[in-house]
Amino acid sequence: MDLTNLHWASATDAAKLIRDGVITSEQLVRACLRRVDEVEGDVQAWTFLDPEYALAQARAADELRLSGQPIGALHGVPVGLKDIIDTSDMPTENGSVLHAGRTPSRDATVAATLRAAGAIVMGKTVTTEFATRTAGKTRNPHHPGHTPGGSSSGSAAAVAAGMVPLALGSQTTGSTIRPASYCGVYGLKPTFGLIPRQGMFQLSRSLDHVGLFARSIDDVALLLEALAGFDERDPDSRPRARVPYSSIAAEDPPLPPMFGFVKTGRWEQVDADAKDALAELCERLGEQVEEIEMVSTSDDISAWHDAISGPEIATSLRREWETGRDGLSPALRTRIERGLAVRASDYVQALGRIPQLNASFTELFEQRYDAILTPTASGTAPAGLQSTGDPAFCALWTLCGMPSLSVPLMRGANGLPLGVQLVGPRHGDARLLRTARWLVAKLS
Amino acid sequence: MDLTNLHWASATDAAKLIRDGVITSEQLVRACLRRVDEVEGDVQAWTFLDPEYALAQARAADELRLSGQPIGALHGVPVGLKDIIDTSDMPTENGSVLHAGRTPSRDATVAATLRAAGAIVMGKTVTTEFATRTAGKTRNPHHPGHTPGGSSSGSAAAVAAGMVPLALGSQTTGSTIRPASYCGVYGLKPTFGLIPRQGMFQLSRSLDHVGLFARSIDDVALLLEALAGFDERDPDSRPRARVPYSSIAAEDPPLPPMFGFVKTGRWEQVDADAKDALAELCERLGEQVEEIEMVSTSDDISAWHDAISGPEIATSLRREWETGRDGLSPALRTRIERGLAVRASDYVQALGRIPQLNASFTELFEQRYDAILTPTASGTAPAGLQSTGDPAFCALWTLCGMPSLSVPLMRGANGLPLGVQLVGPRHGDARLLRTARWLVAKLS
Repeated sequence: MDLTNLHWASATDAAKLIRDGVITSEQLVRACLRRVDEVEGDVQAWTFLDPEYALAQARAADELRLSGQPIGALHGVPVGLKDIIDTSDMPTENGSVLHAGRTPSRDATVAATLRAAGAIVMGKTVTTEFATRTAGKTRNPHHPGHTPGGSSSGSAAAVAAGMVPLALGSQTTGSTIRPASYCGVYGLKPTFGLIPRQGMFQLSRSLDHVGLFARSIDDVALLLEALAGFDERDPDSRPRARVPYSSIAAEDPPLPPMFGFVKTGRWEQVDADAKDALAELCERLGEQVEEIEMVSTSDDISAWHDAISGPEIATSLRREWETGRDGLSPALRTRIERGLAVRASDYVQALGRIPQLNASFTELFEQRYDAILTPTASGTAPAGLQSTGDPAFCALWTLCGMPSLSVPLMRGANGLPLGVQLVGPRHGDARLLRTARWLVAKLS
Repeated sequence: MDLTNLHWASATDAAKLIRDGVITSEQLVRACLRRVDEVEGDVQAWTFLDPEYALAQARAADELRLSGQPIGALHGVPVGLKDIIDTSDMPTENGSVLHAGRTPSRDATVAATLRAAGAIVMGKTVTTEFATRTAGKTRNPHHPGHTPGGSSSGSAAAVAAGMVPLALGSQTTGSTIRPASYCGVYGLKPTFGLIPRQGMFQLSRSLDHVGLFARSIDDVALLLEALAGFDERDPDSRPRARVPYSSIAAEDPPLPPMFGFVKTGRWEQVDADAKDALAELCERLGEQVEEIEMVSTSDDISAWHDAISGPEIATSLRREWETGRDGLSPALRTRIERGLAVRASDYVQALGRIPQLNASFTELFEQRYDAILTPTASGTAPAGLQSTGDPAFCALWTLCGMPSLSVPLMRGANGLPLGVQLVGPRHGDARLLRTARWLVAKLS
């Protein structure tokens, strides 16, 4: 067995190799740590990583396997966690100087679930300030002068750079899809409420989602299958029947899927090379894709998203705003001020749009389309590290709580990766992954 | 069989007599209609009542029973519906000139459920304007110069006056408990979300509850058992295991229940005779009651309730406000204006109080008390028909979504009835009814 490139192994393969005794978790984690040594100086994906502690977890996993006890689906596989996800054994600083040194005593539900599935918590990845827009230190692994996107900057970059096969982030507007697109990995924002958010920094209750990063569809499905579940402590979590995400994602669709191409009201802001890449992709899909028009304008969608996220963010950060205002970035201060000015009746009305929008999409999906195909962003990762890029192309799908996936299928004129966004109906996560696998096979 | 006083029969007895063929639904409905003829001129409980149509429903019920087909738990029993509950065969005017002549094409879920259980929809009962505070025409059946309370004025009065054994209302602050107390009947506001509100006028999504009126605990349980259920069209409805409310309510408690007496922060506003009546009641309970102190002040509770109900009411009535302002009462206009001024962050924060408050009560209930015992109102029904009385004594329990029951156990110095309010933990509705039955037996 050649262990040189073990850090590029998929989580699915690695878990099988560990289960079968071909490799140990320690070997895998060592390979990932070597990769961290190589590239972290350039990429800066981690805010906390203790190699000895990661290895100690790996050795414990190896001992457990040797003891003959049952092991989980992610046994021995390292995962990076965005630094807004509480961990009982590592700091969680939420990307803010105001939370520097914060050491929660409990695991977030997703962290506990990952550990129960046997995963190694490799470390905490860089987030923007409170998962909003003020950038952290992370650089795009494909070009250090470009942003990795945000807010889940470190998770996207760590997976893209081969430092871990899997990582978790979050999305309140475009914080998973955009960095996945910019970094050239798969990024899934599952259906709203599907993965419990208990123990994560709450930015906006109505819009926060857990986000998943991986380098293959199989790995996304594996991670989703481990994490989807009910937790009564998340008010938007509901008990549901267990879905076999991995096996559904691996199936062939019964018919070639139909895609509805949505340019969105911001099509004019899309870069010329991104337009070309999308046009070429649609051309290769031929009769399997049709352009569909949106009724709501992108200005409406932004206004509704702002009317919800603004006051919820202001409420979540009320204590920081009241007692530590100087420790907030000027951009976040402005956002909180705007959020505080929103009237409750506008907030309530905007929340009322969500079921209305979902009803209109449900019709589209039931009658004709397997997935919506739409830009992830205005183009490839912008140059510079100040801005993490524009999340507007993700706002509608986040607002609706529909599952969306960035699929790394395109490149810009500058050679940087560019994802295409696939969106499915609520709770159509498994079929969305199956459709994505068909698309990737079709185009490769 | 003496049919003279059939209109005073309980729903439980009447349903059994009809089921056993001792009486017909037509006889029961005729008795109720005769009672309407006698007292409606004074009481004015109905906004729509077509005697011929009620009798036609009764005859159809009698035919169905004779056909040998299975019949429901309320077969042949007449029920009054507050005129904010949509009915496909009667107008639903929401107590407003702006909705005069409104004839919905579909039954609300509760109306359809009642019909499926065999009930006769007797007619629509008077509501205040949009279930808020501006009074309708109804008078207190015990004294025509006094208010029946509101907003479910007609439902409480119709049951109290013997015109129907059962009626439905609603409660957003104190709209069921207060009129039940003033009219001397049982009024139950069940746990939030337990009975679906689909097809009822939505005043405040976070606070609206269906309310139940009856003249016995058995009847409340019978009605609750018919109506509790899941409807995905009500966003706050959840699937739950079926609870046998009637049989639990009929059981003896395993131990004498403990009551926690909560005076509330408005104790000073309680009339002297109501204080005396409560003191006597507590004295007779002896060691089974203890006074407990509330941490939250009544001003806080009112502020949180207003921060939620204000903007939700303003949003619900946005169209009426924008296009028919002159058709709204000055009081409601003022309330909408105040609601429109509420900031979204205060609204979100107030919503966040609900789980916190519930957590503190859960502890009390789990550790020591079977029910909270507390005033329903400041005293008996005030003189005059302009005001429907002060709902403040109900605000906390509505905010928390805890089940509360007005039990007609007391009288004021003026001879008018006065209820005592029992409150249980969320989803403790069945045990609350059992506790209430113990209390009534103990004191009679």
